[in-house]
Amino acid sequence: MYQINDNYQKLPGSYLFSTIGKKVAAYSEANPDKKIIRLGIGDVTQPLAPAIIEALHKAVDEMGNAETFHGYAPDLGYEFLRSAIAKNDYQARGCEIGIDEIFVSDGAKSDSANIQELFALNNRIAVCDPVYPVYVDSNVMAGRTGTYDTKTETWSNVIYMPCTAENNFVPEFPKETPDIIYLCLPNNPTGTTLTKDQLQKWVDYANEKGAVIIYDAAYEAYISEDNVPHTIYECDGAKTCAIELRSFSKNAGFTGVRLGFTVVPKELKCGDVSLNAMWARRHGTKFNGAPYIVQRAGEAVYSEAGKAQLKEQVAYYMRNASTIKNGLKDAGYTVFGGVNAPYIWLKTPDNMTSWQFFDHLLEDANVVGTPGSGFGPSGEGYFRLTAFGTYENTLAALERFKTL
Amino acid sequence: MYQINDNYQKLPGSYLFSTIGKKVAAYSEANPDKKIIRLGIGDVTQPLAPAIIEALHKAVDEMGNAETFHGYAPDLGYEFLRSAIAKNDYQARGCEIGIDEIFVSDGAKSDSANIQELFALNNRIAVCDPVYPVYVDSNVMAGRTGTYDTKTETWSNVIYMPCTAENNFVPEFPKETPDIIYLCLPNNPTGTTLTKDQLQKWVDYANEKGAVIIYDAAYEAYISEDNVPHTIYECDGAKTCAIELRSFSKNAGFTGVRLGFTVVPKELKCGDVSLNAMWARRHGTKFNGAPYIVQRAGEAVYSEAGKAQLKEQVAYYMRNASTIKNGLKDAGYTVFGGVNAPYIWLKTPDNMTSWQFFDHLLEDANVVGTPGSGFGPSGEGYFRLTAFGTYENTLAALERFKTL
Repeated sequence: MYQINDNYQKLPGSYLFSTIGKKVAAYSEANPDKKIIRLGIGDVTQPLAPAIIEALHKAVDEMGNAETFHGYAPDLGYEFLRSAIAKNDYQARGCEIGIDEIFVSDGAKSDSANIQELFALNNRIAVCDPVYPVYVDSNVMAGRTGTYDTKTETWSNVIYMPCTAENNFVPEFPKETPDIIYLCLPNNPTGTTLTKDQLQKWVDYANEKGAVIIYDAAYEAYISEDNVPHTIYECDGAKTCAIELRSFSKNAGFTGVRLGFTVVPKELKCGDVSLNAMWARRHGTKFNGAPYIVQRAGEAVYSEAGKAQLKEQVAYYMRNASTIKNGLKDAGYTVFGGVNAPYIWLKTPDNMTSWQFFDHLLEDANVVGTPGSGFGPSGEGYFRLTAFGTYENTLAALERFKTL
Repeated sequence: MYQINDNYQKLPGSYLFSTIGKKVAAYSEANPDKKIIRLGIGDVTQPLAPAIIEALHKAVDEMGNAETFHGYAPDLGYEFLRSAIAKNDYQARGCEIGIDEIFVSDGAKSDSANIQELFALNNRIAVCDPVYPVYVDSNVMAGRTGTYDTKTETWSNVIYMPCTAENNFVPEFPKETPDIIYLCLPNNPTGTTLTKDQLQKWVDYANEKGAVIIYDAAYEAYISEDNVPHTIYECDGAKTCAIELRSFSKNAGFTGVRLGFTVVPKELKCGDVSLNAMWARRHGTKFNGAPYIVQRAGEAVYSEAGKAQLKEQVAYYMRNASTIKNGLKDAGYTVFGGVNAPYIWLKTPDNMTSWQFFDHLLEDANVVGTPGSGFGPSGEGYFRLTAFGTYENTLAALERFKTL
């Protein structure tokens, strides 16, 4: 008789955003007259930029013609896209990343869930707390996290690095040495980030301890301050200890288009074994490439027109961020983030728990946010709002906040 | 110090199609004047059908407009697509599969590689031999296959079920009881298949032994004979023992578009645990949906115009199949398949090994095929040709064969 992977049974409840979706759906059904404003899931609302739409139409036409039709894509992604990435995201910032160190995928969620497959099952992971749930959950499914304590809502074999107002959201080196360190910077959910000097210390730490950093830079496009690194490879020595995950979801509105990439430097080795070769093998065996039309859309992100249009789109969302941040501050809330990231992280008022505040906000203001505790125990007492709504909805949500 | 998943180190050589790609690239570079005809990788050559192109353009336009823009897709896929699948692929064949048993993905390669994650690491897999390499390789990476014997080219913990001319390519029940049985029907690479009565015996066997069948029906659209099942759910009792994988790559030319789906019936349970719920959890945690525009393209596959156009496309490739099959037969080759599948499986002449024949064909006829031994030890002495070329190339390849 076959048996299941019983690590799945250890996962508590359902995936955070599924739970939120169900709660909101239930409320909507019971209150069909209420207009709900969603600042919960980090999903974009602006349409794709004209340069991207144009590239998509052109690629679709190519697929309809035998001479220009494209079948299976190259395992690592089309060279036209990998070249654009290498040039714009790395070489332009002084980072020597070659195109054979770039692996195009269907998005950073898949990559951040799949990357753990490269490592031994007894490796110990460290995560910032709070954190994007996929890092921990994908390791739970693999059996790397030990047992779950329902009281503390922590896993016995995961090293948590609290990031709270008390330490200015800067994780401290853990007491126990981790093997794999997940860093998401600019951070989801707190909207905060590290300076280049602060990140350099983590790179040095990883190289010293023989740890690997999984660096999720999905929100890189929202960086506004000069001393914040856009890629971990701006730090010395990062190529021997870090894998970088990137997304087109937030800089170009590709949440429903699906495109991302992972950088695995050739210098990243465990003994003699190249992690670049391992990831290439995984891509070749378990994945069949992102769609041709989507890779052409990705290329358009780096065109002159695309860059200009997307700069405006990012500015649009960042106006929302500062509007929420300043508005909530004025209304007496304690708020963080929103300067180098499209997320606002607020302290729940009156010592409410995160989920209490979620219900209160949903029921009394018809605004959806994300409970901080859903991102980890140190998120308790915090709440995440996203800047990805429309400007009109953002203003309306703010008005409703003031009536609470 | 972190450690790698050393199961990756056990994988012999590189992925079959990467090896072929490299060999062909090296030959091309050395012989730039030779025009190579590729009947190796099962990649389509006909452009997307007009109904699909139209749906893609329409969906692209929607993505460029704030009112009709689509961000993150629902975890399991859009209802419009899942409804079309349930209705056309199942209910129309008398199989009661509900839309919440259908999971839309970026393709059957990902699904067939990922599905093993649901099972315990000590489960024993059985595969037809020869077989699509992803089934075994994904299990190697997970650590389920034991040790590799370079002499026999087999894994100590994999049950091989030879499918050769001697048993008419019908796998026999193995001596040892497997937990997970992979069946690809119509079969890649042999191009042969089972009748409904033959498949029913496997369903009964799986239910009796408590095994689960992973049924890969990627080539379903090529079935021409009445007694061949289009889905395993045509067999009684399949819902309690079988997961079905489906692809849009071959029936609609989506190899570069990327779309597939998996059916996990709600009745499929291991004790109390629903595999449908487990796969839903995996989708929610590790995947973010197929692109909206691609799902709309998938919907168009089931439109009246789409169906008519794709029927013609399949007929085009099947004309190639019968052309190759009959042509090779006339030339004295022993050939199989090509009736319910777009693959021709031939005995190599003069007792050549599969790779010897590959080199011979590449160098002396400039035709690329796939060595049977790349699909497993019982594929030795066989060779796969695909019907996915253009008709003109298929005829030209046949002429070259005759000169050998």
